[in-house]
Amino acid sequence: MDSTFVVGIDVGGQTSKLGVVDARGTVLAQTVIRTDTYSDVEPYIAELAEAVNKIIKDSGTEGKIRGIGVGAPNGNYYTGTIENAVNLSWGGDSVVEFSKLLSEAMGGLPVALTNDANAAAVGEMTYGAARGMKNFIMITLGTGVGSGIVINGEVVYGHDGFAGELGHVAAVRNNGRTCNCGKTGCLETYASATGVARTAREWLELSDEPSVLRSLDTIASKDVYEAAKDGDKLALKIFEFTGKILGRSFADFIAFSSPEAIVLFGGLARAKEFLLPPMESAMNDNVLPLWRNKVKIVFSQLKESDAAILGASALAWEL
Amino acid sequence: MDSTFVVGIDVGGQTSKLGVVDARGTVLAQTVIRTDTYSDVEPYIAELAEAVNKIIKDSGTEGKIRGIGVGAPNGNYYTGTIENAVNLSWGGDSVVEFSKLLSEAMGGLPVALTNDANAAAVGEMTYGAARGMKNFIMITLGTGVGSGIVINGEVVYGHDGFAGELGHVAAVRNNGRTCNCGKTGCLETYASATGVARTAREWLELSDEPSVLRSLDTIASKDVYEAAKDGDKLALKIFEFTGKILGRSFADFIAFSSPEAIVLFGGLARAKEFLLPPMESAMNDNVLPLWRNKVKIVFSQLKESDAAILGASALAWEL
Repeated sequence: MDSTFVVGIDVGGQTSKLGVVDARGTVLAQTVIRTDTYSDVEPYIAELAEAVNKIIKDSGTEGKIRGIGVGAPNGNYYTGTIENAVNLSWGGDSVVEFSKLLSEAMGGLPVALTNDANAAAVGEMTYGAARGMKNFIMITLGTGVGSGIVINGEVVYGHDGFAGELGHVAAVRNNGRTCNCGKTGCLETYASATGVARTAREWLELSDEPSVLRSLDTIASKDVYEAAKDGDKLALKIFEFTGKILGRSFADFIAFSSPEAIVLFGGLARAKEFLLPPMESAMNDNVLPLWRNKVKIVFSQLKESDAAILGASALAWEL
Repeated sequence: MDSTFVVGIDVGGQTSKLGVVDARGTVLAQTVIRTDTYSDVEPYIAELAEAVNKIIKDSGTEGKIRGIGVGAPNGNYYTGTIENAVNLSWGGDSVVEFSKLLSEAMGGLPVALTNDANAAAVGEMTYGAARGMKNFIMITLGTGVGSGIVINGEVVYGHDGFAGELGHVAAVRNNGRTCNCGKTGCLETYASATGVARTAREWLELSDEPSVLRSLDTIASKDVYEAAKDGDKLALKIFEFTGKILGRSFADFIAFSSPEAIVLFGGLARAKEFLLPPMESAMNDNVLPLWRNKVKIVFSQLKESDAAILGASALAWEL
């Protein structure tokens, strides 16, 4: 067994999670720092490096760290930069040389960086549901819809480092919902946690159908999930619609790279019991006959609290 | 300069074209045999091997052939088989071990096989418009719409050898046209030569708009092209519609693999003057801002009569 270790850092808009991980995917030590209290990247990096050094010390792995893997919004694998990440308080309109800054602050330790969904894909391949798979598509169902595409055992970065934006393919061509990206009809506007809440608000307004959701002041996807578990018919229909939208998009993804499986992760993936049946049937109804009933839909097996760190850390094994 | 040569064979439903090719992409000798006069594959392979031997002799390349590349409908790169190719008289419902049979008939020369669109992609990368590109998507606009996807300089075959069926993604989600594959709304039903003719027939029936196309008994895409060149308004609108359908599908393809370019080839690509403007604007209107006006649409530079042979032959360089 390899006696080296890696560090994984998941950079989120509010907090950054970091941990020391062994080759089996055990998180030996972890901690969290704020991301959003910094308007400049330098002091953030200084605190991050301090936190990394602390968990290395806590886990007794000094001198045994092979490298650091970072998952961050708009992270570019080729350049190690974070570009125009509007959700990061120090991201803004600029290009942040994240890998370079962090590596310097860590005395030259190598740093690999990519976006969060790509990191999740590497995590699943290394420690999770995609172990042994060479061709799969990771879909993260969170606030938005992200994706990481693996072909022949390697993440697809494309010619510029930004490949795999499947949350922004056209799920609905005409009169689609407005997306944050400026387009309309993007998959993300229907099939994310936000999208599910939007569907609920839209349908409540358009119909008189009774639902426990009517009594709520604000609706989040979690409320729709709870209502569905209690048998609320409208909530169940919302998940059926969401699953269908996802499944028919998966059919198009399969035509592209013919993956062995679609792997799902993220908050919304907890609604597996309601999403899976409509997703599978829409996928199989819309895919070419040669792939019908042949492509698996699997759900992440990683412990949710560790998954972001594990995904990022897995990148570092490739350094 | 490499002093070895390769053979390229393009297996079509009616005829099979074959040629001996040098490393610069010059076709030194070529010939054509019938495909559709055989109901069994063995006598077809026997005639094919004879024809290959003849062009090798004609070109004076005996003993210098590195291998044979074959482009064929439903060709599987991994297994060297042709599976359920309904358009081939000896294809039918079976799995034909094409590479094995041909290699045996050619005294053990190595044979590489893939589908025609993948072969075209390798051809463009080796000799054509995609030289030097590591990430591009080849779209063939012929009777159908085929595709070959190149990522990091390699064709994407997927987990089963059948990746890259972009003619069968959903161009139209509701009330889409019926496709030969059994689905509806496939890109191929709108953006192939057949699709253009279908659009013409549909629009002529639905409107009273004057058009020279009304005087024809049967309409092929070539007629629509000729009419557009003569300024026929309906014909021009048909190409605008076709280009738009293609361009917005390209936007989704870009979100997948972030290619440097989309490369177009095939009979319908001759209508470049009419297709390119609506294609480019629909692509840029529907793509994420980060790729807007950044992905090129380029047209094949290969001589059309040689292209099928060149594409297939290029596979053999990798043997």
